[in-house]
Amino acid sequence: MMRPFTSTISLEEARRRLEESARPIDRTERIAIEDAGGRVAAIDVTSPIDVPAFSRSAMDGYAVVAADTRAASRQQPVRLRLIDRVFTGEMSSAVVASGSCVEIATGAPLPAGADAVVMVEETARSGDVVDVFSPATSGQNVGRRAADIAVGDRAIAAGDLLTPSRVGALAAIGCDAIDVFAKPRVAILSTGNEVVEPGQPLQPGQIYDVNRFTLAAVVSAHGGVPEPHRAARDTLDALVDALDESARADLIVFSGGSSVGDRDLIVDAIAKRGRMIFHGIAVRPGKPTAFAFVGDTPFFGMPGNPTSCLSNAYILLVPFLRTLARLPPYAPKTVRASLGRRIASAVGRHQFYTVRLHEGVALPAFKGSGAITSLSQADGYIEIPADRNVVEEGETVTVTLF
Amino acid sequence: MMRPFTSTISLEEARRRLEESARPIDRTERIAIEDAGGRVAAIDVTSPIDVPAFSRSAMDGYAVVAADTRAASRQQPVRLRLIDRVFTGEMSSAVVASGSCVEIATGAPLPAGADAVVMVEETARSGDVVDVFSPATSGQNVGRRAADIAVGDRAIAAGDLLTPSRVGALAAIGCDAIDVFAKPRVAILSTGNEVVEPGQPLQPGQIYDVNRFTLAAVVSAHGGVPEPHRAARDTLDALVDALDESARADLIVFSGGSSVGDRDLIVDAIAKRGRMIFHGIAVRPGKPTAFAFVGDTPFFGMPGNPTSCLSNAYILLVPFLRTLARLPPYAPKTVRASLGRRIASAVGRHQFYTVRLHEGVALPAFKGSGAITSLSQADGYIEIPADRNVVEEGETVTVTLF
Repeated sequence: MMRPFTSTISLEEARRRLEESARPIDRTERIAIEDAGGRVAAIDVTSPIDVPAFSRSAMDGYAVVAADTRAASRQQPVRLRLIDRVFTGEMSSAVVASGSCVEIATGAPLPAGADAVVMVEETARSGDVVDVFSPATSGQNVGRRAADIAVGDRAIAAGDLLTPSRVGALAAIGCDAIDVFAKPRVAILSTGNEVVEPGQPLQPGQIYDVNRFTLAAVVSAHGGVPEPHRAARDTLDALVDALDESARADLIVFSGGSSVGDRDLIVDAIAKRGRMIFHGIAVRPGKPTAFAFVGDTPFFGMPGNPTSCLSNAYILLVPFLRTLARLPPYAPKTVRASLGRRIASAVGRHQFYTVRLHEGVALPAFKGSGAITSLSQADGYIEIPADRNVVEEGETVTVTLF
Repeated sequence: MMRPFTSTISLEEARRRLEESARPIDRTERIAIEDAGGRVAAIDVTSPIDVPAFSRSAMDGYAVVAADTRAASRQQPVRLRLIDRVFTGEMSSAVVASGSCVEIATGAPLPAGADAVVMVEETARSGDVVDVFSPATSGQNVGRRAADIAVGDRAIAAGDLLTPSRVGALAAIGCDAIDVFAKPRVAILSTGNEVVEPGQPLQPGQIYDVNRFTLAAVVSAHGGVPEPHRAARDTLDALVDALDESARADLIVFSGGSSVGDRDLIVDAIAKRGRMIFHGIAVRPGKPTAFAFVGDTPFFGMPGNPTSCLSNAYILLVPFLRTLARLPPYAPKTVRASLGRRIASAVGRHQFYTVRLHEGVALPAFKGSGAITSLSQADGYIEIPADRNVVEEGETVTVTLF
């Protein structure tokens, strides 16, 4: 009656099948650039304007005809006549001819006729007479029109992650909204008769739902929109109904119900509604993890144990979700540390083992796959590959930080 | 009339003064744990319950009296009478006395009298008779009550960053809401007569506002709530009004208006409303950066040039904001690369130089401090300390990635 796992696949094989199965999202939406930070551009954006749209001064000083200043020095300044003054946001109607100059502020448009700016520190002024102390070369202290972006330049490419500077590039070309890829909607549901909402009283034999909250936090942090559902009871009908209700999401993540008990019915529910890609991975914690398609919608069946569930969310769900969301791969930080205590591991299983870091030493933090504090009180984890059965105290290990 | 900088301070000194000036936020708010991911706990949370609240089975199998099975083997199984069956979410009213057992599912409460669980693979059953093939030790396959968290344990400490696993720890103890530190509200405003909103038509001499958008994106990504204001004109009255309107924020960030022109009036506005902590840093780009207090509210005056502004936002504003928000320091990733072209730098100035990475080579991407594409088309930056004036082609450099 109870069904043990008939086979498990290796972590590498699980990763390979997931990679093969992840289809980046095609749905797009138009959003204001205020909201675009961290999103992914769905279209190329070419500039309708030159940036800057005019040649402008890079200094506070005087717009001149460079040739006029060729012989200028402290000893023998070149004397120019001040004919106008131009601030930022204005245009000067003056034309700078030989022998004249215009006072100009940083960022103000270069007046017609001028081809250089002499910085104020290299000048002295008295009334409408300006003495220039050093020769200017043509183009000096001038920001050329279109030096940043030219009309028709591609400011943003489809697939670009919209970092702050890329949001700035959109603003610079006057673009106030952009088409981005939609965030994948992720239906999240815990299964189990014993599972109760936090905030409710706990009856004998019941436990609070943990996985729905840890999964939602992970999904939010990696480009998805969590759509939490209330926990479902362990009946085939309840699970099939829950699958049907979730089918319009871009990704479904259930936890619990994929172990080997009589009432672990995810396998049966998938048989009714989809096709299983794998069920059972040679990894600890997190062996009873399933991946399937329900119609065209990818489905993760996560272990019910909070640590197993969250650990596999980091290891398997995050890369998959980021591919869906078209985000760059996530590479968590790692540090090297000395292992504070010998750890044994089963050969043939890839083991993730949570640790706390204290003065360069990694101390085991794993309290059991049912214990959320195995993770919440850990700083990161080490990995013990399937072909090793022990890591000795004092060995240098790589800790992947949470 | 034009006021050159009288003095600049070193980057180290600027960082020191900022560190001294940053006061972590004290305001708190109560939020649902669904929304708590990435927030910072404002209070210790101790558990009102044991987690789990009952001893439970870690396996599908049979709850037994361990002593009964001492002599069990494949050849000579110990035969027990099945007296009940318990699933998760239920309690069994049966008492397991010597010679009897209860079928039990993973996660179900251990019935009274039993002290161990024999996994189903080590048994055979026929009707209400169960043969046990291997001896069990007391406590075997049992998750002890309170093994994860005990009543009165501190599940979360004030100041904890609420990672997914810590959100899970809150759920596990039945907590559905938590007091967190408020996110700092950051007033953001660009100054300059030439500055126009994206989406509006551009008149001669005008440019689009870039800094408000890049600053808002940076603020959002590092724990702040951006409160954008429309650009202010370059008059002392307009800037003083803008300061007054922003004074209820936790942090004020203006850009532009802190250079040396006649209309660069931030200095005068600060003189009217606050006290300057520094103005001018020996750093490139980004020299004309000011830091002040307006009443008790910290104030950044950022350069108007988009690259200078954003570069200093990463270097100075982000650490400051994260301290306010009580977030852990941000340590961006770095990679080593070979410099693709010689870069000259002024001695006495700490220079940040944006680069693109191509096959392990860092190629200069800097197009000028007015060019947002200096950043939006770069992968990261290198730093050239104040005591160096050149980095040679082929030298190994550390690239800090955006």
